[in-house]
Amino acid sequence: MSNKPVVATMTGDPCGIGPEVVVKSLALGGMYEQCRPVVFGCTESVQQAVDMLGLKLKVRRVSDVEGAGLDPAVIDVYDTGQLDPKFITPAKANAECGRACAAWLKEMDALALAGKVQATIMGPINTDALKMADKFDQVVSVEVGKTYLFLITGPLRVVHLTDHIPLRQVCDIIAPDLVYKALRTIHDDFTRWGIPNPRIVVAGLNAHAYGEEDKTQIAPGVERARAEGINVTGPASPDSVFRWCIDGEYDVVLAMYHDQGHIAVKTWGFVGNCAMILGTPYIHMSVAHGTAFDIVGKGIASHEMMLTAMRQAANLASGKGFHKDAVAA
Amino acid sequence: MSNKPVVATMTGDPCGIGPEVVVKSLALGGMYEQCRPVVFGCTESVQQAVDMLGLKLKVRRVSDVEGAGLDPAVIDVYDTGQLDPKFITPAKANAECGRACAAWLKEMDALALAGKVQATIMGPINTDALKMADKFDQVVSVEVGKTYLFLITGPLRVVHLTDHIPLRQVCDIIAPDLVYKALRTIHDDFTRWGIPNPRIVVAGLNAHAYGEEDKTQIAPGVERARAEGINVTGPASPDSVFRWCIDGEYDVVLAMYHDQGHIAVKTWGFVGNCAMILGTPYIHMSVAHGTAFDIVGKGIASHEMMLTAMRQAANLASGKGFHKDAVAA
Repeated sequence: MSNKPVVATMTGDPCGIGPEVVVKSLALGGMYEQCRPVVFGCTESVQQAVDMLGLKLKVRRVSDVEGAGLDPAVIDVYDTGQLDPKFITPAKANAECGRACAAWLKEMDALALAGKVQATIMGPINTDALKMADKFDQVVSVEVGKTYLFLITGPLRVVHLTDHIPLRQVCDIIAPDLVYKALRTIHDDFTRWGIPNPRIVVAGLNAHAYGEEDKTQIAPGVERARAEGINVTGPASPDSVFRWCIDGEYDVVLAMYHDQGHIAVKTWGFVGNCAMILGTPYIHMSVAHGTAFDIVGKGIASHEMMLTAMRQAANLASGKGFHKDAVAA
Repeated sequence: MSNKPVVATMTGDPCGIGPEVVVKSLALGGMYEQCRPVVFGCTESVQQAVDMLGLKLKVRRVSDVEGAGLDPAVIDVYDTGQLDPKFITPAKANAECGRACAAWLKEMDALALAGKVQATIMGPINTDALKMADKFDQVVSVEVGKTYLFLITGPLRVVHLTDHIPLRQVCDIIAPDLVYKALRTIHDDFTRWGIPNPRIVVAGLNAHAYGEEDKTQIAPGVERARAEGINVTGPASPDSVFRWCIDGEYDVVLAMYHDQGHIAVKTWGFVGNCAMILGTPYIHMSVAHGTAFDIVGKGIASHEMMLTAMRQAANLASGKGFHKDAVAA
């Protein structure tokens, strides 16, 4: 049997560009050399995407990941019949597809927790469809102190201590323990993924990291991590740390709040971007674009972000560190 | 007499790279076609820089800006004897030079307020030297609700509503009137500088501009400005507005706090960056680098930021809008 990690990719909503970008990535990306890719979704939607793109690939429905994802000429689709293909309405959201997306995510999660899947990638979901199905809460969101949104755009890698929280509240909840726990998670995850002794830089909260919270809340958390041998610097000036990371001086930035990291990532360059949730028991990645209903079925959707996510997932799950080709424009 | 605006450039601390980058910019940049450049500083330090760089330029001491800055073969230095050249200690800060910098700034300011100078540029000052001279407070800093730090890096232009204020306090002081006043200043200044009907986008305070302050404090200020005919959008998602500006959809972003704007500018690209203070009666610009004591007198200091500042100042003072060549790497 292959020792390569199984990378499970959920197509995303079959009414959107998800199936297209997934099969395009598998057709062009040489993924089978790096991992065993298995698609989670509706077999018919994958077959439609293959046909539409004129790809010479066989699509095979499987009900087990054992032995799947080995043949580059075959796209294996783990499909337990969650969606009747008649419900696929291209470029239009519907509840059935939303419900199916939630079910596929659940299936991937169960197999990952059972150790049969080493990494999962969530293709572009449709928020409306999930809400129609009353399943929006099943998309993993971050929980302060437990899980962290991690954005990757080439060399710019940013973990967010907090996510969608009012800025005023961010000032209140930042505490040494919260900072320490995030640093411990980053250190342990990166080490496992093949980045030994990761160089972490912590952004301060205030301008030039010169403020009350920087001194009393962030610095002690950083000190504790450092005392335990974690290679961490900061709190440092928030307007400098992201550039340092791009320039290769650090492997990752720990940002204090949503916009610190998102402004850096989205202003610097969004191409090749992918997102992860840190603090989960397995590699949990998602593409950074949506269902793009305006270009569904035209064969023009770019598969770049999906391919980047697959490459990153395969590399990290193999303990080979971040993928070098996955660089932003 | 020439109708070109007089652009006054203070060399910055003569112990640093200021005089070098000023004379290099004047030698290479074709500034005399756009304005009447007059240097404020110590004539001997300017002469030394010209000699060190091997430039074929005459240095002339003047005590009036009338008739100055007309001959491209001559660098006119407005020098009232504020500094005895014997106090120039290359690559080493001293109080005398700090005191002289403050005096030159004061002289430029007086001439600008008298209408004899249309724009001023502050070359790289040395904070230590100014503090030794107890003159640090004479460097114009921003005052909430009156003046605003404005950073320019190619197409990315960002006005900051607040500057060095704790983030917690930013949440408290943002108010409709504060937002409105900044928008009025931007609109009026840009219009005067040759950018009619400037397209302004306002960053929200919270993630996705989805928060209490965005709705109750920022939006009403934007509404008031819009009702008065100002071309303004927002509050919009802080992680998107800077990219929109880079892509040319807006002329300027109004950022709510220091790091919003600074993270965007410094992560995207710092080359060609220059800074202005908005809300002053004349164009008030400064270079975005320091005295660089480690490379003083070697002739290797880049004049790019200084030249950008001069070009922007000349263009804006002439009512020609932002300089197109002044683009970041």
